[in-house]
Amino acid sequence: MASKTLAEVSQHKSSSSCWVIIQNKVYDVTEFLPEHPGGAEIILKYGGRDATGVYEPIHPPDALKKNLPASKHLGSLTQESIRVIDEQNDNREKTKDELRVEQARKKMPPLDRILSLADMEIVARQVLSYKALAYYSSAADDEFTNRENARAFLRFFFKPRVMRPVSFCDPSTTILGFRSSIPVFVSGAALAKLGHPDGEANITRGARQGDIIQMVSSNASLSYAEIAQAADPAQTLFFQLYKHKDDEIAVKRIQEVESLGYKALFLTVDAIVAGNRESDIRSPWVLEEQENGPLYFNQEEKKPEAGLNVFGTAGALVANDDRDMTWEKTIPWLRSITKLPVVVKGIQCVEDAVLAVEAGVDGILLSNHGGRQLEFSLPPMEVLYALRRERPDVFDRVEVYIDGGVQRGTDVVKALCLGAKAVGLGRPFLYAQSAYGTAGVSKLVEILQREILTAMRLLGASSIHELRPEMIQRVDWEPRRASKL
Amino acid sequence: MASKTLAEVSQHKSSSSCWVIIQNKVYDVTEFLPEHPGGAEIILKYGGRDATGVYEPIHPPDALKKNLPASKHLGSLTQESIRVIDEQNDNREKTKDELRVEQARKKMPPLDRILSLADMEIVARQVLSYKALAYYSSAADDEFTNRENARAFLRFFFKPRVMRPVSFCDPSTTILGFRSSIPVFVSGAALAKLGHPDGEANITRGARQGDIIQMVSSNASLSYAEIAQAADPAQTLFFQLYKHKDDEIAVKRIQEVESLGYKALFLTVDAIVAGNRESDIRSPWVLEEQENGPLYFNQEEKKPEAGLNVFGTAGALVANDDRDMTWEKTIPWLRSITKLPVVVKGIQCVEDAVLAVEAGVDGILLSNHGGRQLEFSLPPMEVLYALRRERPDVFDRVEVYIDGGVQRGTDVVKALCLGAKAVGLGRPFLYAQSAYGTAGVSKLVEILQREILTAMRLLGASSIHELRPEMIQRVDWEPRRASKL
Amino acid sequence: MASKTLAEVSQHKSSSSCWVIIQNKVYDVTEFLPEHPGGAEIILKYGGRDATGVYEPIHPPDALKKNLPASKHLGSLTQESIRVIDEQNDNREKTKDELRVEQARKKMPPLDRILSLADMEIVARQVLSYKALAYYSSAADDEFTNRENARAFLRFFFKPRVMRPVSFCDPSTTILGFRSSIPVFVSGAALAKLGHPDGEANITRGARQGDIIQMVSSNASLSYAEIAQAADPAQTLFFQLYKHKDDEIAVKRIQEVESLGYKALFLTVDAIVAGNRESDIRSPWVLEEQENGPLYFNQEEKKPEAGLNVFGTAGALVANDDRDMTWEKTIPWLRSITKLPVVVKGIQCVEDAVLAVEAGVDGILLSNHGGRQLEFSLPPMEVLYALRRERPDVFDRVEVYIDGGVQRGTDVVKALCLGAKAVGLGRPFLYAQSAYGTAGVSKLVEILQREILTAMRLLGASSIHELRPEMIQRVDWEPRRASKL
Amino acid sequence: MASKTLAEVSQHKSSSSCWVIIQNKVYDVTEFLPEHPGGAEIILKYGGRDATGVYEPIHPPDALKKNLPASKHLGSLTQESIRVIDEQNDNREKTKDELRVEQARKKMPPLDRILSLADMEIVARQVLSYKALAYYSSAADDEFTNRENARAFLRFFFKPRVMRPVSFCDPSTTILGFRSSIPVFVSGAALAKLGHPDGEANITRGARQGDIIQMVSSNASLSYAEIAQAADPAQTLFFQLYKHKDDEIAVKRIQEVESLGYKALFLTVDAIVAGNRESDIRSPWVLEEQENGPLYFNQEEKKPEAGLNVFGTAGALVANDDRDMTWEKTIPWLRSITKLPVVVKGIQCVEDAVLAVEAGVDGILLSNHGGRQLEFSLPPMEVLYALRRERPDVFDRVEVYIDGGVQRGTDVVKALCLGAKAVGLGRPFLYAQSAYGTAGVSKLVEILQREILTAMRLLGASSIHELRPEMIQRVDWEPRRASKL
Repeated sequence: MASKTLAEVSQHKSSSSCWVIIQNKVYDVTEFLPEHPGGAEIILKYGGRDATGVYEPIHPPDALKKNLPASKHLGSLTQESIRVIDEQNDNREKTKDELRVEQARKKMPPLDRILSLADMEIVARQVLSYKALAYYSSAADDEFTNRENARAFLRFFFKPRVMRPVSFCDPSTTILGFRSSIPVFVSGAALAKLGHPDGEANITRGARQGDIIQMVSSNASLSYAEIAQAADPAQTLFFQLYKHKDDEIAVKRIQEVESLGYKALFLTVDAIVAGNRESDIRSPWVLEEQENGPLYFNQEEKKPEAGLNVFGTAGALVANDDRDMTWEKTIPWLRSITKLPVVVKGIQCVEDAVLAVEAGVDGILLSNHGGRQLEFSLPPMEVLYALRRERPDVFDRVEVYIDGGVQRGTDVVKALCLGAKAVGLGRPFLYAQSAYGTAGVSKLVEILQREILTAMRLLGASSIHELRPEMIQRVDWEPRRASKL
Repeated sequence: MASKTLAEVSQHKSSSSCWVIIQNKVYDVTEFLPEHPGGAEIILKYGGRDATGVYEPIHPPDALKKNLPASKHLGSLTQESIRVIDEQNDNREKTKDELRVEQARKKMPPLDRILSLADMEIVARQVLSYKALAYYSSAADDEFTNRENARAFLRFFFKPRVMRPVSFCDPSTTILGFRSSIPVFVSGAALAKLGHPDGEANITRGARQGDIIQMVSSNASLSYAEIAQAADPAQTLFFQLYKHKDDEIAVKRIQEVESLGYKALFLTVDAIVAGNRESDIRSPWVLEEQENGPLYFNQEEKKPEAGLNVFGTAGALVANDDRDMTWEKTIPWLRSITKLPVVVKGIQCVEDAVLAVEAGVDGILLSNHGGRQLEFSLPPMEVLYALRRERPDVFDRVEVYIDGGVQRGTDVVKALCLGAKAVGLGRPFLYAQSAYGTAGVSKLVEILQREILTAMRLLGASSIHELRPEMIQRVDWEPRRASKL
Repeated sequence: MASKTLAEVSQHKSSSSCWVIIQNKVYDVTEFLPEHPGGAEIILKYGGRDATGVYEPIHPPDALKKNLPASKHLGSLTQESIRVIDEQNDNREKTKDELRVEQARKKMPPLDRILSLADMEIVARQVLSYKALAYYSSAADDEFTNRENARAFLRFFFKPRVMRPVSFCDPSTTILGFRSSIPVFVSGAALAKLGHPDGEANITRGARQGDIIQMVSSNASLSYAEIAQAADPAQTLFFQLYKHKDDEIAVKRIQEVESLGYKALFLTVDAIVAGNRESDIRSPWVLEEQENGPLYFNQEEKKPEAGLNVFGTAGALVANDDRDMTWEKTIPWLRSITKLPVVVKGIQCVEDAVLAVEAGVDGILLSNHGGRQLEFSLPPMEVLYALRRERPDVFDRVEVYIDGGVQRGTDVVKALCLGAKAVGLGRPFLYAQSAYGTAGVSKLVEILQREILTAMRLLGASSIHELRPEMIQRVDWEPRRASKL
Repeated sequence: MASKTLAEVSQHKSSSSCWVIIQNKVYDVTEFLPEHPGGAEIILKYGGRDATGVYEPIHPPDALKKNLPASKHLGSLTQESIRVIDEQNDNREKTKDELRVEQARKKMPPLDRILSLADMEIVARQVLSYKALAYYSSAADDEFTNRENARAFLRFFFKPRVMRPVSFCDPSTTILGFRSSIPVFVSGAALAKLGHPDGEANITRGARQGDIIQMVSSNASLSYAEIAQAADPAQTLFFQLYKHKDDEIAVKRIQEVESLGYKALFLTVDAIVAGNRESDIRSPWVLEEQENGPLYFNQEEKKPEAGLNVFGTAGALVANDDRDMTWEKTIPWLRSITKLPVVVKGIQCVEDAVLAVEAGVDGILLSNHGGRQLEFSLPPMEVLYALRRERPDVFDRVEVYIDGGVQRGTDVVKALCLGAKAVGLGRPFLYAQSAYGTAGVSKLVEILQREILTAMRLLGASSIHELRPEMIQRVDWEPRRASKL
């Protein structure tokens, strides 16, 4: 195929013929336009020109290969065109947000001075691009659920036991039979490249260093293979499955990760449509206003950016997911196509926990998707507490995990007292890798390990088996954070 | 009748003879003075001169015709007098508040960027005149009840169900047999012209676009006929009835709306006297001080504006209402004069809900008038919850609605889980039409529809019949809004 | 007796001979020094000179007569000395606090614009001297109890009844058989002259205008006779009795008020020692620092003002009270010396309410002294609620009143729903008279009357007998005030 | 031994040979390096030079003697070297923090104006060095537990009794048979010299003046003998025992204090490892940044100060403590080596209170170490309340004390109502001695005595035996502090 020139590409920018340039290669995406989960408009905006900058941070490298037939790969740009693009990139004026991030990255504190997950988040919030922060931190509606997930832990106090030998104390456990140095895993969280060029691989390498298990999202920004390659051969990876509405595509995805050595499937059931994450939806406008000033009601000359939709990034990610899964149909189907253990991620009430057990899954992850989906879904810690009181038998029949709102080792220990086998964290790992890459992830595990160990010893427990429901009490008041004034 | 001159009119400005000019026509209101619900003083203040500016936004155009005999319609001004008035109006210096509103109207964001009811209210609060905002937003005493109406929803969390087919999801319902695209209606709210020159017609047209039902207030600032004309022939309108203490006048009002095609009567029972809405009462003083500086205790030369009373706008609106209604007398009387379905609006406890059912009404609207009447009336959501627990049979015998404090689709869905057939919103529609006219109202319905649909799907409900009490849990803590610091 | 000169008086300023000048008369207080409830030091500070300015606002005019034998009344100053004192007073530089008050008094809003008790308090806080405000507003320790008294009302919501005839509505009642236009009385509150030169007489005249009953404090700053004279002959006054530890003095006080026509005795039992009112104790230092700058640890030249004690103004007032009263002894003794009805003021739990009934009193006033005595005494509204649940029979056997924290007509109506016969207010009347004199007091009654009437009508009650426990519900959440940001 | 020169000493600054100068004496600490509880690095930082400034405030004078064999005491510096050190000290530029403290010390208010423990703390917070304040005030993790200890008291209200004779009122009691003027003792708190050069002796002398009992910490910054010498022969001292992991060393420590006349052992069981006190851990960095500016991620030239560890000061203090104590082993062992009464300090739940009783101890101190150890340990006041409800028999079998969060006399009285024999305070005494030395401590006792006496009288109790559980009620709401705006 002959190399293309920029001039040639620029002819193809309409819905009747739309080409885009990604990393100096040209693609004909005309037929893909109606299928693009993020909508056709955002592609058309970049039709006929270079889209690498916006494409890269939110797509794995194999996305084009998986979604476009080979015939639509139109080949490379000419050397001259590549030179022009490079020059344009070199000369492009940085946005205010990019300049802000640059400054913030220069002022990051040494990693040694990060004492807690909160410290890590503070740094990450400063060095993340506005868009990345909006995607990572946003939650549904007014973000009550997101805050309540964390606050729920505050209503649980310890009844510590003294005069027990704890000089030896072991916080390790297994999850689905796989060893973990502490009862903590990385819960699936998408688009790590938004925060750091190495993306999910930072988490993979940090998880190895800390000897914990990573659950990789279907919506990872690296390919599943790239992540598997970043892992040590003996390292355990789990896979967070968003089931495609087309069973065949779904099967292909499962077979891919199974062959790559992923060890379990966490079927996500709480995100069949996107939650209403307003900060994320609003972020393109905020950036636009930051550069060009506000847009007013009657302004004729300024038009809002095309391609915005009220479901934001999340909407694009789940656009093709299966909204009609059922216990009767989906679990047996999954069993029929894979031998991997199956965990249901997104159980939000006792009734569904019981149904999941009856459907024969290997584990359940009590989660409301970090408060990003249904606003006012009960906090997982409250669901765990209800499950312990109402159906303690469930803990004997499947492994139970929770995620959402975990900030401290004491949070983890509280969940374990109530019967959780392990506790997942999502955003904290995204923040850690965004700020400090692999070292940040490794540091995070180290902090949690230290906090868990301290809490266990002061509770009088020398192994996780000694963490018992009797050691915890739900109180009828709520501690308040110190006011910062 | 000979045309009048300004000079002639200006002779009549006392309680023995009082003329006023409204839209270039002259009226003798001497005999009407003692009957004016807003008091004689405010009319006397404008006696002998043009009162159009203060009259128009708070009276429907047929108010003069309904209240003044033809003999008191003294005819037009002379052309020269009309010219003088126009000139005066053109030359009148704008008040600080008018200038503020003008500026704010220029800076309204595009409607596309309004993502939530809160966004809409923020804009409306900026572009409304101080007086309109005071009337719309004010509530009784310290406005606890108003805030509690909204906060009550925060104490109800969902127990979402997963693995249910929801790709098809229908949020439509009927109210008294009339279709509504979502389980939401416009609850009666007075004086829309205060916020926008097109007044209630904005809501009528927006309701049609969104396919929901509007309840029109007895105290609308357009005539009932004008509103009916703004509606599509197939569109459903309900009427919020404030019963006049004079039965004959009350009958006339009912017959008028029945003949105009209104489809149901919502008899208002919680506003027999006006609540103590201090912000509204205070608003004329605030405006006066803004223009002329504060008034002090011992100032001789400055006198407070006449015509103020401690019951404010609300007091004027209900001055002639019936304070002696009873279940035994009023409902049968109403049935005797109309075939329209009758709903009682303003039920505030379980006991009265039961009495209403026994009185044979078609529906009850649990409402405390948006917190504008009795301070510390229980939030409707709490009354609904008590009704569900104590008298679930009521839901089988009449349709139950609530209004007050609704801000999100999840609020609507919570009420439906507990058995409400539909949920009313008042202030949000006033804000929407004030800011963006008909388009604002239509946008509001669109937002609610999207939020309701998302909540239903994430709850696992594909129709409103699948929303059940088991899906909701009242919690013993209270979520807090993020602090804005 | 020969007139004294300033020079002569100035010789007597030690504990061996101490003279003071009050309103141009000279008194020998040497023997009184150890008996002075406020301590000897404060008198010695003014020994040998004019003490009128500090004496007047906190002593009734007959205090000298009652406490000093005639032989210690040394007669008048010479005319020349009087001239010198007048000149000194005229030339005295005003303190910063006096100048602040002067300015604030000029900026008081017209009384018509006072819509609520909160409005009144805001004005009073601006125009009161620092010392007066500290005495009036202060409460025990960290003032939790004071705030909780008010917040307790917020936990009670109404279950309003509709469709009841209320065009006629009568809020009047009787207290111990004496008529009151509304179920509200002035609760005993000391030292009204601190806030206004006419002192308690403002309240007396305002109470007459509003047709309510005033309870006069033993520690009034006018004499009991002066207050009686300010009253209309038909007007009802009650007396708040602080029992002197010396029974004879106590009897004399009771006989005095009985002969002056006071109609009942409210025996105060919750203030046998002074509460720890830190703001009051601190106020002299604050004023001193305001004038002269702060006092530091090692400053030699500056010495703290003499006469301060850690019990403040309150300590002085109760220094001679009886700390050993008992049910067995005190009530029979009181009955033996007076025919007036006896109410016990300061009941703080159900057990003591029952003991009071058994001791045969005519009424009980549930009160914790406005939070000024024992910090963490339960709010009276909570005690009332407990009494209603645990011992409803008490309401049939004695009249029950409460005071403390009342700010709104709804507060009054809530207490009446639970069975209170009437509700007392103390501080609000002090604030009202301080700011606007008699007119302020009268305005306060008018506001309460309007608010009570509105609340009763909207509750569906046409008389206070229709206010029932079923109309009120204690809720498990707490409304919050709007943030002022 | 020949005197050493600075030049000679400076040769020994590595782990193979490390000398330090303390108060002009030279010590060879090479072999001690690995045993130093605070880590070897911090010593190496001062190797080969004068370490007096950092050593003194946190080590008792006999620490060197106890920990270093005589052969390692290398003798004095030469006079010339001493002169050089003195000169260096004289010329050393003060740090910003030292200058701040100097200024603050000049502005301390006179002690007479300290009315409450809060007043005292405010002064102390201003005059303490950053490091001392960080150590004294810090608590575990986010310091919820520390705040909750204090807030727990707010949920307990009084049901005061009136008409009881209280002119005579005696707040004195005994603790383990030893008299105390009020039911308050000084709870063990380490490192008083950080706040004041006289250290723990201030507390000893103040406790004597106030006639209360001091519990001396194993980690006192004066030697146990020095403290005993500061005491009056008749004065009672208790000893807070941190048991060394080496039983022989532990026995030696117990025998020492027994022979010095200490009267009881409070075995500390809640601090076997250090809590995560982030403010304390962070304090060296904050000071460093204050002097030299912030340290950034990629700075090459600046390196973080050596010797920091994530367990901070507390970690060093407990590094050698016994983490394997048990009821079966440790209590009998303790009984076998001492006749002193044994109290277990750090009981945090009812179950362990019962085990302690069964183990035959003389008393239990309900404590979570001032919130400095396990975050989310229940507040002692809540544990006391649970113990009263669930196991009231415990109060008859051992003496029960609590500490943590006490700020007011009412807090003390509340604990006594529930059955506590006495209440300990730690931080408040550290603050008092830091600010005002002995006089501050004495003042603190005086304030508490006054507050306890007032509370008892207003409660109707004339001795501590009349404080009963019926006088207290746990409420279901929480009082809020006044906002300071």
